[in-house]
Amino acid sequence: MLNNTLAYGLEAVENQLQSIVDSDVQLLADAGLHIISSGGKRLRPQLAILAYLAAGGQDLDVVIPAAAAVEMVHTATLVHDDINDHSLLRRGKITVHAKWGRTFALLAGDYLFTKVYELMAAYPPEYNGIMATACIRLVEGETMQAEAAKAGVMDRETYKTIISRKTASLFEAGARMGSMLADADENTIEALADYAYNLGLTFQIVDDILDIIGDPEEMGKPVGADIAQHRGVMAVQDGVLEEVVAVTAVAEADDPLAQMMARLRESGAVEVARRQAEEMAQRAHAALTAIPESEARQEMVALIDMVLNRQK
Amino acid sequence: MLNNTLAYGLEAVENQLQSIVDSDVQLLADAGLHIISSGGKRLRPQLAILAYLAAGGQDLDVVIPAAAAVEMVHTATLVHDDINDHSLLRRGKITVHAKWGRTFALLAGDYLFTKVYELMAAYPPEYNGIMATACIRLVEGETMQAEAAKAGVMDRETYKTIISRKTASLFEAGARMGSMLADADENTIEALADYAYNLGLTFQIVDDILDIIGDPEEMGKPVGADIAQHRGVMAVQDGVLEEVVAVTAVAEADDPLAQMMARLRESGAVEVARRQAEEMAQRAHAALTAIPESEARQEMVALIDMVLNRQK
Repeated sequence: MLNNTLAYGLEAVENQLQSIVDSDVQLLADAGLHIISSGGKRLRPQLAILAYLAAGGQDLDVVIPAAAAVEMVHTATLVHDDINDHSLLRRGKITVHAKWGRTFALLAGDYLFTKVYELMAAYPPEYNGIMATACIRLVEGETMQAEAAKAGVMDRETYKTIISRKTASLFEAGARMGSMLADADENTIEALADYAYNLGLTFQIVDDILDIIGDPEEMGKPVGADIAQHRGVMAVQDGVLEEVVAVTAVAEADDPLAQMMARLRESGAVEVARRQAEEMAQRAHAALTAIPESEARQEMVALIDMVLNRQK
Repeated sequence: MLNNTLAYGLEAVENQLQSIVDSDVQLLADAGLHIISSGGKRLRPQLAILAYLAAGGQDLDVVIPAAAAVEMVHTATLVHDDINDHSLLRRGKITVHAKWGRTFALLAGDYLFTKVYELMAAYPPEYNGIMATACIRLVEGETMQAEAAKAGVMDRETYKTIISRKTASLFEAGARMGSMLADADENTIEALADYAYNLGLTFQIVDDILDIIGDPEEMGKPVGADIAQHRGVMAVQDGVLEEVVAVTAVAEADDPLAQMMARLRESGAVEVARRQAEEMAQRAHAALTAIPESEARQEMVALIDMVLNRQK
């Protein structure tokens, strides 16, 4: 029953994402469809839909544009990230940046961002306020990350702030909007928002871990890309970072990435990060106790394990 | 009387622009304030305010965030344009791109765009729809321009479409929102939107002319920058473009820009463009006849001459 509903919702999101990027400017339509149809876990729209259902929502169609919008925000930032990171592969496909060049990737990212705005425009002001704030936090988080990468300095506090803003805020916004659209009471809204926020933190820490120990073929992108830019999981253990930076400086000519990653794996940083991810997952679990039992809630519990234990 | 009201409105817009870019991520606050406080003609917010007044609006405060938002869209695109154009100077000041580097300029542009969203969020859906559409058209226009520049081919029809989308759409959106906020009737809204749209076309053609014949010191930026990228006024006369492209190819090593611009000045293209600007200005005039006489309407008439005859 829930599986059917969820599948219907995710398919509707997919259709909306694909149709809304259409344009008579063929390059934008092509680049938009390229990145949209390159897959992705669709975690953010799933959260918006599940929050809507867990809060008792009955008409899935009202949450679809908002669910598509949170995925579109994420997609737009991926296109711009790939420019700044010089990434060639994303989800196993060539990046917009690598395929169309920097100028058009910049414009394609802008274009996808305008489509967020189009998807959200029909909702009342409070929804647009939530989405605007999430977008602002996301760009702030990315900027802090780029600053830390440039300075080669990142402490645990900064890392937490970065992943909170760049990832958890948007997870939270999706669940908050979903539950609000179901006319949930304040407690339910806050519980579902809290769940999604902590799931977002869990997701990002695991993502940073996978950048170190993941299988590149399963990941569909090179492993170590984040590390090469002095960011990611190493940040969760302050002392390790200095070591990593030192190794980068020394071993520049001699496959520094492989060395750096080997050192990092041996340093214990991954284990520390893993424990932090588990703690965030526990908080996500705890938040869910405040909402009534339902199939959607069960799925949200399952999602925590999926996020925590994913291999890609 | 009107002058006081307009000055009050523009000062309120200025304050809103400056305060809304604030962030605890200092780099974003600094880069935002840098570009915001580097001046600019503030034509777009002026249009939103004048349309509001010409349509009988009484409480200027309701139009300020929308007026600030149209200027913010423009400002965000300037930051991204300067990345793609490798521009070092803008309004006589160093560009965000030149001062903070490409990565942060990309993020700062994204940040300013999220601030558009924040400024607009409190308005009802139809306003967000108008703004979303204007943003989409703008990015489409910029993309078409970059494509034409890359291909080295631009005909008159394409040029018209580009300036309509990248410039006139946002002018129109400002006036449309301003008149709607004053509860104007349908005819008044369409007349003011039509005026602003044609003023936008006039503005852009004159802008492209100034790129060829303007005084660089008065302009606060190098002259010929647009031409160097095969775009701008040359496009209004199809035949000239081929000639310009041929000149570029031949004279690459020998100050091609100076030669190209001299040829262009002699070709008559500027005069053709000038006549087109005058025609668009006439249309803007004509649109205004449909709305009742007022100080704001007089100011809108004066604005046409100002836009048509500006030297910078």
